[in-house]
Amino acid sequence: MRAVVYRNGELVLGAYADPIPAAGQVLVKTRACGICGSDLHFCDHAQAFTNLASRAGIASMEVDLCRDIVLGHEFCGEIMEFGPSADRRFKPGQLVCSLPLAIGPTGARTIGYSDEYPGGLGEYMVLTEALLLPVPNGLPATCAALTEPMAVGWHAVEIAQVQPHHIPVVIGCGPVGLAVVAALKHKQVAPIIASDPSPDRRALALRMGADAVVDPREESPFRQAEKIARPVGQGGALSSSLLSKSQMIFECVGVPGMLRHAMDGASDGSEIMVVGACMQPDAIEPMIGMFKALTIKFSRTYTGEEFAAVLHMIGEGALDVSPLVTDVIGLSDVPSAFEALRSPGAQAKVIVDPWR
Amino acid sequence: MRAVVYRNGELVLGAYADPIPAAGQVLVKTRACGICGSDLHFCDHAQAFTNLASRAGIASMEVDLCRDIVLGHEFCGEIMEFGPSADRRFKPGQLVCSLPLAIGPTGARTIGYSDEYPGGLGEYMVLTEALLLPVPNGLPATCAALTEPMAVGWHAVEIAQVQPHHIPVVIGCGPVGLAVVAALKHKQVAPIIASDPSPDRRALALRMGADAVVDPREESPFRQAEKIARPVGQGGALSSSLLSKSQMIFECVGVPGMLRHAMDGASDGSEIMVVGACMQPDAIEPMIGMFKALTIKFSRTYTGEEFAAVLHMIGEGALDVSPLVTDVIGLSDVPSAFEALRSPGAQAKVIVDPWR
Ligand SMILES: [Zn+2]
Ligand SMILES: [Zn+2]
Repeated sequence: MRAVVYRNGELVLGAYADPIPAAGQVLVKTRACGICGSDLHFCDHAQAFTNLASRAGIASMEVDLCRDIVLGHEFCGEIMEFGPSADRRFKPGQLVCSLPLAIGPTGARTIGYSDEYPGGLGEYMVLTEALLLPVPNGLPATCAALTEPMAVGWHAVEIAQVQPHHIPVVIGCGPVGLAVVAALKHKQVAPIIASDPSPDRRALALRMGADAVVDPREESPFRQAEKIARPVGQGGALSSSLLSKSQMIFECVGVPGMLRHAMDGASDGSEIMVVGACMQPDAIEPMIGMFKALTIKFSRTYTGEEFAAVLHMIGEGALDVSPLVTDVIGLSDVPSAFEALRSPGAQAKVIVDPWR
Repeated sequence: MRAVVYRNGELVLGAYADPIPAAGQVLVKTRACGICGSDLHFCDHAQAFTNLASRAGIASMEVDLCRDIVLGHEFCGEIMEFGPSADRRFKPGQLVCSLPLAIGPTGARTIGYSDEYPGGLGEYMVLTEALLLPVPNGLPATCAALTEPMAVGWHAVEIAQVQPHHIPVVIGCGPVGLAVVAALKHKQVAPIIASDPSPDRRALALRMGADAVVDPREESPFRQAEKIARPVGQGGALSSSLLSKSQMIFECVGVPGMLRHAMDGASDGSEIMVVGACMQPDAIEPMIGMFKALTIKFSRTYTGEEFAAVLHMIGEGALDVSPLVTDVIGLSDVPSAFEALRSPGAQAKVIVDPWR
């Protein structure tokens, strides 16, 4: 099949062996697959990425970097054929989503970071039948493929357990930050403050439900949160009760220095949810954390239940993801799109349609 | 009065103006004062320390480093005289403790890090009458002075909210680590694992209630926790339920690299309480945090209620602090004790008796 292959440290359009469904597996035609920031990280730091996963004990991400790897873990497929002893719960032609996890004879593997299972940047994939979720309500594949990144944001908001005394501050309005904004909005948390240097991404944040957006080069989102917590001219008891609000900061950028920046800007007692994946070691100032009694919580993907719930909400229109799809490209455009996404500008989610 | 003074970047035995109690204040004779790791940090990095406090918005720690500073925030005093309009709740001769906070005409100041109020490394102090706590049950001043560091450990355990699925791992058995062990023991958390390279400090940890101690140069305390969570030879349901235990790590060392080390050793889903104060910027690996779904919580001192509760527990014998006092010295020995405590060896808490 045609696929974009990570081969010898490079991303090339090439041929990859047609995947064959084993017992309990299903062959799907890839209908849509998002390009994720982690895919860019992987291309730049594949060895560091896999070493970190291995040191953290993530067995499903063991990968031989000398073999071809087809990236892509945010996908929607169309059922083609069933492997042996399948339940055949779905008919061929049915659109399905799945956690990016393949369960086979060699154990569990992360689809999109595997030398065994091709990810969504190729024409076909094999998925595990037991993990398949039907795409509901005639939702187009481009939107269904947003389930994965939306679930990342949803999970971060779930574990954050935002309380009434928190003001949420979302740092970075790429797909993950926008997913966090959408999840906060769905949970009726307000006011939501979002920050991004790109005016297009700030406009998207407003569209996804942010109440105020900030260009961090011009104004600190943390000071903006304090201003909202303490409206000018209000004094006395009201003011002091509002002053006791702390910030629930969602760090969705994931480059070195952002965590230190967030700790420096955070108000007393704030919590920082780390949702943006920073591959490099990153320096923080522990004394700032202690003086301010901060908490840093690292968010890890999502549960299977959350993934299914998010797909359901997208299908019901309760989460509108269509504004996030800023481009749809074919396989041949993927290598240049990876390059372009290093400075994303106006882009949110770029979707690959291998059959385009 | 005689005092150990931080002057021009050095610690010297010298003269300091006799403090005079203002309205609502009380003059006490300093009967005992502990030397704290933060005091050593302050001597080494006074400017960085005060800059960090100022950036974190701790107004009570504003200090002019060109003026004399008498360190010492872990003290017990004896009532001498009252300032104007005092309630005179206590008689002269009464031993008292207090939060290291002075409230006066210029606002609140942290005693021990102030150019206005001398700390406990001098013959006299002024304290705020409203904050005084009588030392109960004839407790000696050396033990009452342990209230402050014990409260630091107590608070960390309070906010950690240790659950039955947690195994506590205490890294570093200096006074703060030992206070954490004692607080965990008091709350009947078990098993408590404690780690320190010093055999004397490990012995103290056992005496304060640790169930297992580890020399980190020979064995990882995190692996030790996993071994205890999964006893050899046990399998099946029991084993897998024990395997789901995560660690509640109390980082009580506070030097660069410890946080990264703790994240690297932590099991999946663990929490790290930062109790040891690290003054320098410190590099962590955010991806390890994300892959393992870790939480880092920075602990900040204690509440007034916790401080009072800890003094009460020490007075009742519910927290036995006497093993922690490994030396009692006079003022003239303080500068050399500061030097010696840079490699503490067998020492836990060194108490200064200015009248010795
Ligand atoms: Zn992703
Ligand atoms: Zn201290």
